[in-house]
Formats: sequence, structure tokens, C-alpha cells
Amino acid sequence: MKFKVGIIGGGRIGYVHTHAINKFVDQAKVIAIADAYLDSQNQEKFRKLGVKSFYSDYNQLLLDPEIDIIYICSPTDTHYLYSIQALKANKHVFCEKPVAFDLEKILEVKKVVKETKKYFTVGHNRRFDHNFLALKDQIEKNTIGEILQLRITSRDPGLPPYEYIKKSGGIFLDMMIHDFDMALFLTNNKVVESVYATGSALIDKKISELDDIDTAVVVLNFKDGSMATIENCRQTSYGYDQRVEIHGTKASIKIENDTNSTLIISSDHGIIKEKPLYFFLERYQNAYIQENKDFFEAISSNKEPKVTIDDGYKAVLLAKAAKISLKEKRLVKISELEE
Amino acid sequence: MKFKVGIIGGGRIGYVHTHAINKFVDQAKVIAIADAYLDSQNQEKFRKLGVKSFYSDYNQLLLDPEIDIIYICSPTDTHYLYSIQALKANKHVFCEKPVAFDLEKILEVKKVVKETKKYFTVGHNRRFDHNFLALKDQIEKNTIGEILQLRITSRDPGLPPYEYIKKSGGIFLDMMIHDFDMALFLTNNKVVESVYATGSALIDKKISELDDIDTAVVVLNFKDGSMATIENCRQTSYGYDQRVEIHGTKASIKIENDTNSTLIISSDHGIIKEKPLYFFLERYQNAYIQENKDFFEAISSNKEPKVTIDDGYKAVLLAKAAKISLKEKRLVKISELEE
Amino acid sequence: MKFKVGIIGGGRIGYVHTHAINKFVDQAKVIAIADAYLDSQNQEKFRKLGVKSFYSDYNQLLLDPEIDIIYICSPTDTHYLYSIQALKANKHVFCEKPVAFDLEKILEVKKVVKETKKYFTVGHNRRFDHNFLALKDQIEKNTIGEILQLRITSRDPGLPPYEYIKKSGGIFLDMMIHDFDMALFLTNNKVVESVYATGSALIDKKISELDDIDTAVVVLNFKDGSMATIENCRQTSYGYDQRVEIHGTKASIKIENDTNSTLIISSDHGIIKEKPLYFFLERYQNAYIQENKDFFEAISSNKEPKVTIDDGYKAVLLAKAAKISLKEKRLVKISELEE
Amino acid sequence: MKFKVGIIGGGRIGYVHTHAINKFVDQAKVIAIADAYLDSQNQEKFRKLGVKSFYSDYNQLLLDPEIDIIYICSPTDTHYLYSIQALKANKHVFCEKPVAFDLEKILEVKKVVKETKKYFTVGHNRRFDHNFLALKDQIEKNTIGEILQLRITSRDPGLPPYEYIKKSGGIFLDMMIHDFDMALFLTNNKVVESVYATGSALIDKKISELDDIDTAVVVLNFKDGSMATIENCRQTSYGYDQRVEIHGTKASIKIENDTNSTLIISSDHGIIKEKPLYFFLERYQNAYIQENKDFFEAISSNKEPKVTIDDGYKAVLLAKAAKISLKEKRLVKISELEE
Repeated sequence: MKFKVGIIGGGRIGYVHTHAINKFVDQAKVIAIADAYLDSQNQEKFRKLGVKSFYSDYNQLLLDPEIDIIYICSPTDTHYLYSIQALKANKHVFCEKPVAFDLEKILEVKKVVKETKKYFTVGHNRRFDHNFLALKDQIEKNTIGEILQLRITSRDPGLPPYEYIKKSGGIFLDMMIHDFDMALFLTNNKVVESVYATGSALIDKKISELDDIDTAVVVLNFKDGSMATIENCRQTSYGYDQRVEIHGTKASIKIENDTNSTLIISSDHGIIKEKPLYFFLERYQNAYIQENKDFFEAISSNKEPKVTIDDGYKAVLLAKAAKISLKEKRLVKISELEE
Repeated sequence: MKFKVGIIGGGRIGYVHTHAINKFVDQAKVIAIADAYLDSQNQEKFRKLGVKSFYSDYNQLLLDPEIDIIYICSPTDTHYLYSIQALKANKHVFCEKPVAFDLEKILEVKKVVKETKKYFTVGHNRRFDHNFLALKDQIEKNTIGEILQLRITSRDPGLPPYEYIKKSGGIFLDMMIHDFDMALFLTNNKVVESVYATGSALIDKKISELDDIDTAVVVLNFKDGSMATIENCRQTSYGYDQRVEIHGTKASIKIENDTNSTLIISSDHGIIKEKPLYFFLERYQNAYIQENKDFFEAISSNKEPKVTIDDGYKAVLLAKAAKISLKEKRLVKISELEE
Repeated sequence: MKFKVGIIGGGRIGYVHTHAINKFVDQAKVIAIADAYLDSQNQEKFRKLGVKSFYSDYNQLLLDPEIDIIYICSPTDTHYLYSIQALKANKHVFCEKPVAFDLEKILEVKKVVKETKKYFTVGHNRRFDHNFLALKDQIEKNTIGEILQLRITSRDPGLPPYEYIKKSGGIFLDMMIHDFDMALFLTNNKVVESVYATGSALIDKKISELDDIDTAVVVLNFKDGSMATIENCRQTSYGYDQRVEIHGTKASIKIENDTNSTLIISSDHGIIKEKPLYFFLERYQNAYIQENKDFFEAISSNKEPKVTIDDGYKAVLLAKAAKISLKEKRLVKISELEE
Repeated sequence: MKFKVGIIGGGRIGYVHTHAINKFVDQAKVIAIADAYLDSQNQEKFRKLGVKSFYSDYNQLLLDPEIDIIYICSPTDTHYLYSIQALKANKHVFCEKPVAFDLEKILEVKKVVKETKKYFTVGHNRRFDHNFLALKDQIEKNTIGEILQLRITSRDPGLPPYEYIKKSGGIFLDMMIHDFDMALFLTNNKVVESVYATGSALIDKKISELDDIDTAVVVLNFKDGSMATIENCRQTSYGYDQRVEIHGTKASIKIENDTNSTLIISSDHGIIKEKPLYFFLERYQNAYIQENKDFFEAISSNKEPKVTIDDGYKAVLLAKAAKISLKEKRLVKISELEE
């Protein structure tokens, strides 16, 4: 008996989940997509993966009694509303990150999760990636002792369209949110006391006109005195850069980028390795499969999913603090946001 | 319309193909297994992958009109007979390597392939591996100029059972056969003029009582004066070692081993990377999928498979030459085997 | 005709310079050491390197007409006074970093340098290291385009004695001063607008009683919007960690640690490389030789040394800003320190 | 009291030794060069290193009572004669490799060494290199258990002049001789039972007219069943390639090439490391210093030098066997050369 999944949003990430689930996951099947603007060409792509029904109104998904789980893959500003509606329609919900731009709204969703007793998870896919899990595994084995300094480098291969940036909530809520989540995941939820953020639009000045930046550094101060540094940039010359390094009292651990092959070319130009896998679709292909599997297994076995709404809340909390820090050019205490 | 596949031999490699095809390949489905000794526990494993029928007599597979393709995954000494019978029963054939211990028998199979006009391929899976393909790609782009020296390092993580060794045909026909094929694949079938082989039973002296060795080096002399060196060992302390290095006039290229993650641990013990993926099941998981896809696509589109019976013949030819060289402690000319 | 050098301070760094100059530098010779507390055993070590005269009073060095150049290798709180006195005694001066704890005092030394027209340099040895120079070379070739993000990782293998820490001026003036200088060196003196510093005593709580920390992160905001991140820690499990990574618009470049050999051990424990060279004596042995050569060549050829008193000033300026930032937990503008 | 050294042969290797000794070695000084064809420009280079006397006749060196040690850096065909004459003139002798083209002549030199009781060593400089010593160190610590397979890769960056090749004795005596010595050094003189050699002139066909080859592979069969493979090529696109890999029962170890810095450039072209150090002068600069120090220390302390005439003999023995194997296209037993 497979779970039946309906997805709100037939864009790139909706397709990624459909592909992952219908090709590689036994426990569930995506059967319907709701998207007001899905053209026939894109419908065809979904059809090839076994999707049968297409709705222009997402309410039709919520009303479909066959559907067990709703995936919210629509623009971020709709996540909050759709989450609540889906939960109230008695569906489990997989919500893409971030759950909402406002912390209060996430807390509201949390309330509804509790009331409806449905399963809810957030798409922090990197927690399911083999490299990040290799770090986590070492941390849990206590290979590294106490964490002193954590550093996350996260750079995209190229700028997204201006239209995307406008709706994204800015670099901290759109891009660095993954790194905030990762910092919490790897430290087993160390308490963040304060946040310092800096950044500029250095790749493309127009991005500052959209009230965003493309290059950023954030420092997280944990209550125990240790610290995390996150570097983001929306462009590189060499592809997707996804590295973490943790300096601990007993050992330091790090992960490097993945490549398509281990080829090395030695020539007059030097000793040349392959560039990293191009972007998140290539890099996290398997992580998407695993995060979906985990959610279905959690539901089946009555366990909490690996990523909870609290995790979704905490990452947004740090993103909000970073936004204030950048704007006001000062260190921001988390307590300022939580009174 | 999927191809229906029947497999002769329900052992490890039969399972590998069933798993690859039924989980990851759209164009075909394994529906039946013929194996005289398959117990119910192993049947259950195949059943979970969607296999419906189990026969103790392989002839039942050949007689089943529903089946389009036969996979020969039985012990090597049966490959020849089953290949011919399957072809004559009007089936396409995927034969595990080597096709036969004797060159004449491979030529017989070749004759039947021609007569029956069925598709036939040999399981030289490494040709479909991402790392070896990365080398091939560079060679085809002419990154390296003329090939001067080719070196293949191929080491297994541990000894197989004595029972296996007894039937394997020896290290050259069982293990190095992959490397002979790779040398030919990477050089675009350079003509081998002579072969020098050396080796001993250094890991386990009992292996010499079985008339085999566990550690070997072979040098292939190509007609154009260039040369290949192949190193095999049946045991390492660090896992499966599958590397190639090619020295060319314009550049030299190599591939390193694959790992599960890019984790690096820096501690008092040094700077430590992960060991290679443990063995062929882990290392070539995707190559098995790709080799199967390639065969089905070849059949569908009326093209020659990437690995032909001629490729199967040439690898055995080199293995036979190596056996003579080892036994007689001398350089063996290929022409000696081909009068 | 070699320059005659006298060194104030017969401790570790005084010995390093004597060894570098008398063993590997043709243009000069260390002939005298002034140190009130140099025991006979340590005298012997200097004698073996060819040092003839030993004084307990540094004034004797200043009065010695044979001596051309004074090296100031005494505790930091004496650097300022000795520099001025040596310059006024008509000697060229090589002063170990930092020139003084106070910016005003460095400006005073600068005034005396101008008045006396003697040569003056500061011991920012890393500017002469092969790895950092390889980065600089790429920057000057414009391989990387515009610098977007600079990251310096600098960790010592172990804690210094408490006595040392007490007099050191704290982690920013003692340890990170090298990294501040490196950030300026690599960016061709980009203007720093503001500094954010954080840190704690995580390795040893006693260090906080000495009003210092052992683990720190500093962010430098450059006027052009780009940024540098510096990570320091006074202890690792794997040796001296000296890495830099620069993310640029056209390319990103980095340097890794040096090792004693390129040995790699593959075993059941993993694939193990050597730890970095243990500490600065091993890592920067050649850099000390080169910085001395550069100073003598500058004097001989009437050119400015590669490191000037302005460089010494700027590094201390950033260290002072970092100290305020750490203490007051806020972003500090450089303009606050320079009115 | 320093040893006084006289060098026969003022070419490149004579200069290398003079530079190493007079700049970096305390125990000795090169004071005289004998070379019939040394022009004034080259004399000047030696003069700058402190050499005082220049003779056109090497006998003048032998007659000079001040000289303790003779370095034989002349063409290979003179090594034998000069060695014997120098020993009989009561000088210690450092002879560049190989001692002679003929084994009998080396045995003659050995006899004279015994008779005269002078110290004699051969210039197998790689034994003093940090990377090879790191391997040796692991072998002596028994990190690797029993040696199963040894592989030496040794490639020059470019072809030498035809004039050099004519006099060199061929690739095995000129170039691979270092690798033969290394195979013996690393295995603690395992007994070689037979040798197989193959090779061609692939880089430059004219080399075959000079009765030599430029690309070669040799397999050494040790008496205990283990084996070594040596790959040589006289040209690469990427510089000097000097690597060794040893597969052992407990671990496998290898060394990679040295580079000038640890720089890594990430760009659209890939992830690029530096090429290896260009050639032997760069790569073995420190090894030359250490081999000279070792010889002087051996003499001073009445110990055998690390490289003896027996080592010189064994390397030539293997080279001779390889020459026969190449010519006669067959496996050659060492016993054939030693009746």
C-alpha cells in the first residue's frame, strides 16, 4: 500500500520530488500536481513519471480523499497558508523551506500540526546527503571532541533570475537558510546567542536594487562560546561549492565537493581535477530521494520525521537575525527576536 | 513494451542484474530465474524484486515464448553451452565473462550469433563505469595524444573461497580478464603482439595447490611499441582498488578510487580520507545498470551492443597468453595462439 | 663586505634569525647578541653559529660602531623604545611584530625613521613564504579577477605558556596580527572599514583569567564591499594549520598546509596523509631566510623593504579594532580609532 | 678541520655537488676542479662558490696532497679508471653512477677499495630524498607487512641531447639505474631472480638509431615471489615524475611528486594543482646535500657510507639483465650474468 502524494507547484522542485519518489522510492507515488500555470509540455514531463491528474486549483488536491500527503512546492509566500489548509484537510505535509517569512506564522503552523496530529516536515534536504551525514556520523561517534569552530562554505554556480530574487526573501531566507539548518544539525542544536552578518552585491549591482546581496558572511555565536562562520556567494567560476569544516578538540573534520568522476589530467597546464557537480540538482539528487524515504518511513512507523517544524522555525529565526544584523550593521542577539 | 528477461543462475551476479534491471531500468524486466539449487530464502529475495517464475531446469526458460533475453549468470564452464542453446532457442543473450575457457568455443558461439542474428553481449561491466568512461572520453577528445604507457591496478579486498577459485579458470581468466578488456577498450583495440606474465601465491600458499596465484603482473606489448602493465592482487588492507593511469604524449590521465563520501579527518593520526568503496557490488552498482540499459537500447534500436563477442574473445585470448607465459616463464607471442 | 648585525634578545626568535642569516644568507652576519639573561648554554648555541660578542646591556650594541643593523627580538613592550634608540644610534632596524601595542607609539617610530633616514622593517615573515607568495603571484597575474571573499585559517598546534600570554598583548596582537597583515598583503592593501571580532577561551578556561581567548573569528569589511574572515585557534590535534582561500570573480585560489613528505598510507584505517609541519619554526624556516635577504637587499640597493612601518601600523590597527569589538561585542569602525 | 674535495668533471653534476657542499655542508669544501674543457665563464661559477684551483689534467688533483676526497663527475666511460687511480692515490672516492658499464670492472674497483681501505660511495642520490626516506621509514617500522608488489614510476620532463644518449650506456644504465637501486633499497636488498624488460623509441624515432629507447617497462622477479615494476619515459608534458607505490600485506604506501607550493586554482578549467618540480636539480636539491653529508660523516666516524660499491654493482647488474631482455625479447635470469 503506497502513500498517494499530491504536489502543489509544478516547477523545478516539484519535478525533483516527483522524479525522486516515482523513480526511486517504493513507499509512495506522486499521482497529482496542482499548478495554475503548468503548460502541456511540462505536464508531459510529469506524465512520463506516472502522474495522472493535473489541477489548476490546489483545493482540488486537498479535497481528493485518495491523497495522503501534500507536498508544498509553490512560491515561499504561499507555504504558510497551504500548509495550514492541507493539514486541516487531514493531509500530511512536506513543506519546502522556508515554512514562512514570519516567525509567528511558523508558530501558527506548528499549532495546527499539533492540533491535527498530522505529520509535517520541511525540505532541508542536505541533512540527507552522504557527505553531511559522514560529518554527522563522526560527530556522533565523538571523533572530534568538543566543537570549537564550524565553517560552512556554500556557493551557487550562478545568479538566479531577478524575478526569483524578488520573491525569495533575500539571500539569508533563500540560500543561507540551508546553512543555518546545517549549523544546527551538525552541532546537535547548540543554542545561538547572537548573530553577525555582513554582505554586498558584488557580482551584480542590480541585486542591491532588489534589496538583496549576492555575497555574504555570517558569524553565529553559540551560548557555549564556540562559533560558526557561514560564507555564501551566488556565483563561482567552478560550479556548486558545498563544503563544511569543523575544528574540534580531538580532531578536525571536513567534507569536500563531489565530482562526476575521479579523473585527474596531468599536462602542461597543471594537475587538473574535475570541477564539482554543477548545482543542487546534480549534487543532491540522492539526498532528495532519502529525505522523501525518511518522511514516508516516519509516517509508516509512527515516528517523528528527521526534520521537524521546530527545525524549520530555528533556521528562519537565524535568517531573520542575519537580516537585521546586515541592515543595522550590528551584532543581533537572538533574544531580541524572541520576546 | 518491456523486454522480458530470464536469468540462468540465481547466485550473486544474477541477483545484481535482477536488482539493476527491475529497480532502475525501464526497458526490461526480469521475470524468471532458472537455478537447480535456489533455496526459498533466495527465491524470496528475487520475488521482492518482482520475479514471478522459478525453474530448476534452465531449458524451461529457453522454452518460455514470453522471454526475449537470456542472461547467463551460471558458473563459467556452462557459459558456452548455454549461450549456444539460448541463441538457438531464438533468445538474445547477455553472457557473463568469460564466454568460455577455450578460444575455439568462443568462436563457435560467434558463429551461432551470426547464424541466428540474435543480439549477444558479454558482461564487461567496467566499460560502463563513470571513471573509466571519463578516461575514454579524454582519449576520444585526444587530450592525451599518443598513448605511451598504460597501467591498470586492480586489487580485490579479499580472497574468494577455495571452491570459487577451483572453478574460476585462474586469476587471468577470472579477475584480470576485466583489465585485459579495459586495456583494449581504452586503447581502441590496439593490437597486442606479445604478453609477459608473472605472479605467485603470496597471500595464501594454499592457492598454489589449487594451481592458481593471488598476486600477478602482466605486461602487454602493443604492435606500435607502446605497452600496458596490469597489476592484480586478490587482497588489500584498504578495500577494492581500481585505478588506471595512462601516460600520453600530450597529457597523462588517471582515475582514483571512489569513496562513500569526501570526508577528511585531521587528527594526531594524520590527515585521513575514506577507504575506497568495499568491492565490486558497491563500486560498480551504477555500471551494472548502465550495461543493462545499453544492451536493451542496442536491441531496440538495431545497433551493435557496446561489448561484442569479439571483445569477449580478445580478453580471453590475452588471458590464455598470460597463463602460458606464467607457466613457461617466457614472453608469449599472440601469434602462437592464433595459428 | 657583509652587513654586521647585532640582535637584542637571545630567545627563540633571535636564534631563528641568527641561524637563518649565518647559515643561509650571504649579505650579512650576526656578530653580537645583547641579552641580560642569556645563560652559557644558550651562548654556546649562538657561538656555534659564529656569534662572537655577548652583551648584557643592549646599549653596548648601539654603541658598537661596527654594527650596521639592529634586530629587535626582545619582548613586545620593549620594541618601541629599542627601535627609536637604535635608529637614533644610526642603525638600520629589523623589528619583530608588533612594533608597539599603541598606535601612537608606532607613529612616533615612523617619525624617527623619517628623520634618521635609516632602513626599518617589521618581521611579517609569512609574506616571504612560498605558499603565500604563490597566492600573491596569482593575484598579481589577475587569475582571480575581483576578490569577493578572503578566508584565513591560522591555528597553532598548542597553547603557549601562561607567562607568554600575559605579555603577548592578547591573541589579536600576538597571533592574528600575522593574519591581519596577510589580509592586507593579499588584497594589495584594500581599505578596511569595519571589524567584527568574537572569541572565547575554549581550550583552557584559565586563559580567560589572563584576559585573553584561545579561539577567535574576525570579519574584516573592506570599503569596496568585499570581506575577509580570519579563524584562529591556539590548539589543534594535527599540528600547525596555515591556509588561505580567496574567492574571486574569475577563479578561486587556495593554499594547503606543507608536509614533510608526500607519503600516503592506505590501510584498514583509511587513506592517510602526513600531518602538516609541526609549527612555525618548521613551516617558515625558509621564509625567515627570505625576509632577511630581502631586508639586506633593500638596504644595499637603496629600495624600500617589502614590509614597511606602515604595514606594521596597519596590522596593529586591525588588532586594536578587533580587541574593542570583542570587548564591546559590537562592530567597530576603523574611523573610531583614527580620529 | 674540513675535508678538502677535488672534483673531476666540471659539468652539471660537478657543479651540483660543489654548490651543495660549499653552500650547505659544514664538514667539507670543494677546492679544486679538474676539467680539460672548462671555459672561463664556467670557472667563474665555481669560483663564486669558493673553488680556488682549476686543472686541465685530473692527475694534478690526484697528486695534490691537500685533497682528501675525489668526486668523479666525468663521463661514465671514465668512472672505472679514475676510481681506481684516485683510490691508489690514497683518496676517498665519491663516484657518480654507474661505476662502470661492465660488471667485471666494478668488481675490480671493489678489489682496490678493499686493498686501499679508502672510503668509496656511489651517487645514488635518491636514497637521501625525503619522500623515498619516508617510504623506507614505514618499511622499517613494518607498517606494511610483507611487500607484495612494488611499482616505481620515473619519467623525465624531456629528452637529453643525442650526444648525451650516445655515451649514456642506454636508458637502463643511465636512467633506470636509479630505479633499480631504489627497488633494492626499499626491499632491503631482496634477491632478484629474473628480469623482463620491454620498450621502444616512441617519443623520438631517432633514438632507436642511437640504439636506445625512450619508453620502457621492466619487471623484476624477486626470489620470494614478490615483484617490482618500473616504468620509465624520457618525456612528459607535466615535468619530472618520481613516484613509488608499494602494496604490502598490512598496508600499501606511496609517495607523490613534490611541488613548489600547495596552490590550488578552482576555475572554469577545473581544480588545478601545480605541476611537479621541473627536473632532478629542483627535485633532489636537498638529497644532494644529504648524500654528501652522509659520505663525510661516514668517513669521520669510521662507518660504511649508506651507499656502497656493492649497491653500485647490483644496480648495474639489473641494468645489464634488462638490456639483454630487451634485445633478446625474453626473460633473463640473473644467474646467467653471474656464473
